[in-house]
Amino acid sequence: MTTPRRAPGGFPVVGIVGGGQLARMCAGPAAELGVTLSVLAEAPDASAALVVPSAPVGHHTDTDAVLRFASACDVVTFDHEHVPPEVLERLVASGVAVHPAPEALRFAQDKLAMRERLGGLGVPCPRWARADTLADVEAFGREVGWPLVAKTPRGGYDGRGVRVVSAATELAEWLERAATTGTGLLLEERVDFRRELAVLLARSPSGQAAAWPVVETVQTDGICTEVLAPAPGLDPDLSARAVEAGLRVAGELGVTGVLAVELFEVEDAGGAPGFVVNELAMRPHNSGHWSMDGAVTGQFEQHLRAVLDLPLGSPRPHAPWTVMANVLGGDYPQLYPAYRHVMARDPEVKVHLYGKDVRPGRKIGHVNVSGGDLADLRERAVHAADYLTGVVTQ
Amino acid sequence: MTTPRRAPGGFPVVGIVGGGQLARMCAGPAAELGVTLSVLAEAPDASAALVVPSAPVGHHTDTDAVLRFASACDVVTFDHEHVPPEVLERLVASGVAVHPAPEALRFAQDKLAMRERLGGLGVPCPRWARADTLADVEAFGREVGWPLVAKTPRGGYDGRGVRVVSAATELAEWLERAATTGTGLLLEERVDFRRELAVLLARSPSGQAAAWPVVETVQTDGICTEVLAPAPGLDPDLSARAVEAGLRVAGELGVTGVLAVELFEVEDAGGAPGFVVNELAMRPHNSGHWSMDGAVTGQFEQHLRAVLDLPLGSPRPHAPWTVMANVLGGDYPQLYPAYRHVMARDPEVKVHLYGKDVRPGRKIGHVNVSGGDLADLRERAVHAADYLTGVVTQ
Repeated sequence: MTTPRRAPGGFPVVGIVGGGQLARMCAGPAAELGVTLSVLAEAPDASAALVVPSAPVGHHTDTDAVLRFASACDVVTFDHEHVPPEVLERLVASGVAVHPAPEALRFAQDKLAMRERLGGLGVPCPRWARADTLADVEAFGREVGWPLVAKTPRGGYDGRGVRVVSAATELAEWLERAATTGTGLLLEERVDFRRELAVLLARSPSGQAAAWPVVETVQTDGICTEVLAPAPGLDPDLSARAVEAGLRVAGELGVTGVLAVELFEVEDAGGAPGFVVNELAMRPHNSGHWSMDGAVTGQFEQHLRAVLDLPLGSPRPHAPWTVMANVLGGDYPQLYPAYRHVMARDPEVKVHLYGKDVRPGRKIGHVNVSGGDLADLRERAVHAADYLTGVVTQ
Repeated sequence: MTTPRRAPGGFPVVGIVGGGQLARMCAGPAAELGVTLSVLAEAPDASAALVVPSAPVGHHTDTDAVLRFASACDVVTFDHEHVPPEVLERLVASGVAVHPAPEALRFAQDKLAMRERLGGLGVPCPRWARADTLADVEAFGREVGWPLVAKTPRGGYDGRGVRVVSAATELAEWLERAATTGTGLLLEERVDFRRELAVLLARSPSGQAAAWPVVETVQTDGICTEVLAPAPGLDPDLSARAVEAGLRVAGELGVTGVLAVELFEVEDAGGAPGFVVNELAMRPHNSGHWSMDGAVTGQFEQHLRAVLDLPLGSPRPHAPWTVMANVLGGDYPQLYPAYRHVMARDPEVKVHLYGKDVRPGRKIGHVNVSGGDLADLRERAVHAADYLTGVVTQ
């Protein structure tokens, strides 16, 4: 069935463009809330298409496909940031309620626009510059020192589109490509950070907002592998300032739905803790997967409530600590035996799988564990994830 | 799509016969676990059919439809107890893994068989008798006193098929009907009980079992309206004996999946607390809905794990108390405005709706609230449910 079947009682249909795991993880909460979900999927076996009755196949760059899909929905939201601005504008022009709206989403789609806007709001950011030429890169390198970080302003995720470079010439090819699209490159100083944090919150069109506790995200080779909720030992004042900055960004940019603000925790010259913003994402985010089992309201339920302009749920955690560990694909495609083992070893581990083919390094699931002893939870979460990946075998 | 699309990695397909809310509430956990769900639904707009991609329409008494449905599944389980034994036997004969198996399920399908079997196990039951004639009823009335409780052995639920009678003649019509089917009637003494309790547990084909804490169920006009988890002030010894009886029943009867044992809490002649078994259900049960939000592993996830013979999850509660209140249909079919109000009034209330048309008295959803103050939680849960029903308007 490609047309969503509406539930009785006046309940709306939420359309999600993109059939990845973020759309998939909305399916359970949508069923509980009684709202209908429809997904514009990349393929009939996309992660979300496996669990949602209405999953027409179509591409997010195909304006007609997106418009046709949206015509059966009351609200349209997104699994990713890759819907082109011109498609978004057509959606809005056709009268569809789009959350987040294009004028907010562009700051998650375009990292140069984001840097400019956050700077204007006085939100702490690394020093940055736009580069179109090798001379621009060299000038910025002289200003902030080498190595520096170069990013393609659009389309990157999970470390793709990000490079650490020690000489301008390393960017010759990227600059050439950027010249053809006219997008330029974003250069940033390399931040000497203590650790990475994330502020996760949701905001509704009415302006209600709710933030989960600030978490620590642990990255390995540019991919988030572990999230500790809340961030252990976080300075309470820093936490309050980070949440305040997240709420201000959400309000000023008019974000609707879930907003993730990725931060670097830094020290100022006097050794006092501070932060700079690394990235924004305007959708449920890997740094919030812990909330599915660790909070009264998980991020996927909250995203649905927010885009429907329903009152938001409590983000209160259930337990002192929840640890999330990502399951990355390993070499062995038959996951089920490892999954049995993980469940048998630890009856408190919550295993979430995305119905995706195993490919080395691909995010295919995650696990959550909640409790009172952080070190114990980390050991268990990472062991379960590594066992599913095939990194450990006992 | 009526054929379930299998997820990669060796993950199985679970088929559920019956598309009611119990099947629906398996959808979220199935998506999280990565297993595929398929539902044999009564209609295209059945509660579960609204949220599961594979939901062929067919009737549970239609052997061919059930066999065809089952041929695409690795395991078959049930939304209700109404699949006829001859259909179940055909399923087993065709090589399908059926959980619970027919030889266990018959004790939930036939209350006379259940009474006989539990009596044989020494599990405390009310005094009971089979009646085929008015004389049988009169004799039992003389033995246990009037009024007494009469039950049709098959097909009853939510108070249907149960009558309290003060004279044998009130059962004339029921006896006549029972004579044509040869099923007889079950007569039971009316138990003078303190309150109703329920033991909920899951057992896997390998014999692993896990029980949630014993709960109190509050009934109104024969329908469960509220569940308090755990049962407040329950004598620890009584709790242990009740769970032990539940585990013994599950083991001796070979139950697989979730088993609910409904109990009356009674006092013996010396005033000491005891219990007698009222009913058995071999499927997720209304008395376990609290576990969806109140425990590490909810009953729907646990039922899937059990019927798949996966290791069971922890039944540990998240909070000191969780209160569940059923949402019954009221007079107003447009539920959505009330739902917004309930969410705005209490951000901690978890609202679960079943996508069903509102009909007066019909179970159309439930709410859960967890926390530390039982009286406060009861007030909030019942208010939210009553507001959704339309019983209260502010």
